[in-house]
Amino acid sequence: MFPSHPFSPLPQRRLNRRDWLAVCGALLTAGAATGLAGSLAGCAAPPARGTEDLGVVIGRENGTLTLVDSTTRTALGAVEGLGDLSHASVVFSRDGLFAYVFGRDGGLTQVNLLAGRIVRRVMQAGNSIGGAISDDGALIVAQNYTPGGIKVFDAHTLELLADVPTFYGPAGANQQRSRVVGLVDLPGRRFAYSLFDADAIWITDCSDIKNPQTQKFERVGHQPYDGLVTPDGRYYIAGLFGEDGMALIDLWTQPLTVRRILNGYGKGEQRLPVYKMPHLRGWAVAGRRAWFPAVGQHEVLVADTQSWALAGRVPVAGQPIFVIARPAAPQVWCTFAVPDYGHVQVIDTQSQRVIKTLEPGHAVLHMEFTPRGDTVWVSCRDDNAVRVIDTQNFETLTSIKAPSPSGVFFTTRATRIGF
Amino acid sequence: MFPSHPFSPLPQRRLNRRDWLAVCGALLTAGAATGLAGSLAGCAAPPARGTEDLGVVIGRENGTLTLVDSTTRTALGAVEGLGDLSHASVVFSRDGLFAYVFGRDGGLTQVNLLAGRIVRRVMQAGNSIGGAISDDGALIVAQNYTPGGIKVFDAHTLELLADVPTFYGPAGANQQRSRVVGLVDLPGRRFAYSLFDADAIWITDCSDIKNPQTQKFERVGHQPYDGLVTPDGRYYIAGLFGEDGMALIDLWTQPLTVRRILNGYGKGEQRLPVYKMPHLRGWAVAGRRAWFPAVGQHEVLVADTQSWALAGRVPVAGQPIFVIARPAAPQVWCTFAVPDYGHVQVIDTQSQRVIKTLEPGHAVLHMEFTPRGDTVWVSCRDDNAVRVIDTQNFETLTSIKAPSPSGVFFTTRATRIGF
Repeated sequence: MFPSHPFSPLPQRRLNRRDWLAVCGALLTAGAATGLAGSLAGCAAPPARGTEDLGVVIGRENGTLTLVDSTTRTALGAVEGLGDLSHASVVFSRDGLFAYVFGRDGGLTQVNLLAGRIVRRVMQAGNSIGGAISDDGALIVAQNYTPGGIKVFDAHTLELLADVPTFYGPAGANQQRSRVVGLVDLPGRRFAYSLFDADAIWITDCSDIKNPQTQKFERVGHQPYDGLVTPDGRYYIAGLFGEDGMALIDLWTQPLTVRRILNGYGKGEQRLPVYKMPHLRGWAVAGRRAWFPAVGQHEVLVADTQSWALAGRVPVAGQPIFVIARPAAPQVWCTFAVPDYGHVQVIDTQSQRVIKTLEPGHAVLHMEFTPRGDTVWVSCRDDNAVRVIDTQNFETLTSIKAPSPSGVFFTTRATRIGF
Repeated sequence: MFPSHPFSPLPQRRLNRRDWLAVCGALLTAGAATGLAGSLAGCAAPPARGTEDLGVVIGRENGTLTLVDSTTRTALGAVEGLGDLSHASVVFSRDGLFAYVFGRDGGLTQVNLLAGRIVRRVMQAGNSIGGAISDDGALIVAQNYTPGGIKVFDAHTLELLADVPTFYGPAGANQQRSRVVGLVDLPGRRFAYSLFDADAIWITDCSDIKNPQTQKFERVGHQPYDGLVTPDGRYYIAGLFGEDGMALIDLWTQPLTVRRILNGYGKGEQRLPVYKMPHLRGWAVAGRRAWFPAVGQHEVLVADTQSWALAGRVPVAGQPIFVIARPAAPQVWCTFAVPDYGHVQVIDTQSQRVIKTLEPGHAVLHMEFTPRGDTVWVSCRDDNAVRVIDTQNFETLTSIKAPSPSGVFFTTRATRIGF
């Protein structure tokens, strides 16, 4: 019904001036007739509004997306029927019109944010853990647990374009497929990801989508559990669950090799039971330092991004989950695992100290900064609310109702590598 | 006619679910009736399309904006009547719907990109050199030559909210106003800018817009001619025309002080006549290095961002104008002043060498990367064309007609500090 997707491979007619004037005339007529009124309510025609300040909030329990506007700081509506969103992630089309939601149940759903409805939905796996979108916006990739591997889809049609199963071990009929974690986009329609069961990192080049090429790095370390690419696109880093350290690839140095960094960063510490695996995708790189959550410890760790040696440890209020840099400011904000997830802490990156402890609500599961960092949106699951906090004075500006919210995702993620 | 601007100070009614369903119904009806068809042509209703992939091209000679779509890589239409665009710059509303165009003649024009028309236009000065938008999108600020100073406008209404004249020198009736250059936004509705005639840098805090507060730094160096803030928001740097060096403020260290960096970076060199002042706003910060154009020399300079000492000089094909980092890649791209402005050069930041020289067209005046760097858009004035180049293989993908194009600006600038 909306065959207007920008990634259409069909040649598009160039508009001439007369076309454009016709559109303007129609717009003015519609505008005058309906009094397009600052919100979507009451219009008789689709609202001609911007999409760069839109976002979605995952409704964990009921498979619902809440659509939000980060300028007016309001909810615009909800979209139902997205399946199991107990561990969901979202990427956006480069025009900010479509969200692609990866559900835990293997569902991949394309949502039109202006229409407020599902455009397409495919069940692409039995158990999935997230996805990515290519730098040019043309390809959607899902990272799957069951069956293990990645699948590549046309962003327009959700047609399956490529399937890369993650077989590992000795060749033969009994070969297993590894679960895939830590999927990120790289420039040139490439994708890097980690194989939890195979102790491997793969990089797949989809520039020729009929013939994807995969470069494989084996024995990178035991059980990579998540990964990220640094904002400058230089380093792919996988966290290791099975040992004390991380695996790093310098993507700017050929030939590509894997090296181990931060070995034994938890050595000598008493291990606590791990309540929830931290997320690496939100790793903060602030200036020359990278900030990341220590697994199972009440610490945020600091690494020097030149030597990749440990450069600091900051004691915090619980087991850190998300450690995210506030844009354009010397601050890192941190959320926590149960039982400490009523807190959010703010670390000053210059003094490496906690400068503020907030209690924005009950069961804080995620937070997302607006692009230039004037506000941060904090999902408080047990309050059925997302709190919008002014980063200048830490005051809560408003609270938005959302059922059992977990992830908050703004469309401007489409502008960033690794998101 | 479009009273729907997101920055309205009026309280907005929260949509309830019934509202939303009504909108969806209307959308579906409209969609079915008009067959919204992938382009703006032929619709009977405003197109519900994304704005995050839109952009504008300045038509230098005829005061016209060409509207472009960076996904389909096409022109969508043109907007006329913007006055003198011989030195124009553009900022965008945070929803990507509006462009604010600062013309050389002091005109400030708000353009609705979906409607393809001017919404508001004010003549706010006699001679203006650009502007900025606050981190929250609420304030538009113009930097003016005549009369010297900055003016702050409501982004919704273009109502004048504050006027900060740049008087300098001994108090009295004969006090002069300095021309303002190098205006950038900082977090918390603050703006930094340089006073060319007063050898000063000022930082104005507009968080209380009825009572803006200005912090003044005097004797920063002779004739600051442009400025920038680094992408992390940490450093404000002004280039000096009247001497060999730059002025830097570390915005993360209180109290704020100005220090001189890169003194004598051109010492001992034979000075060439300066054909055009380079632009600093596009300064490339890639990893630990900052890349910037040497004034009047055929060199791109490299500074270490920790010590701010000169760390390298790269010989290039002419006097550099724009030196811009390709997103997520170890490359810096460079344009040149007349007579060498038929070239664009690509520098590898690891080897600090030119690895590619392109000849995309005649009179290259500007270039803009898409947010994740898959393409770069190069304006070729004397060809009346913008060339879209694939950054992976340096091939020209398409050429877009635009009259006498200079600046190319994408709406995703709204997500970046200092743009």
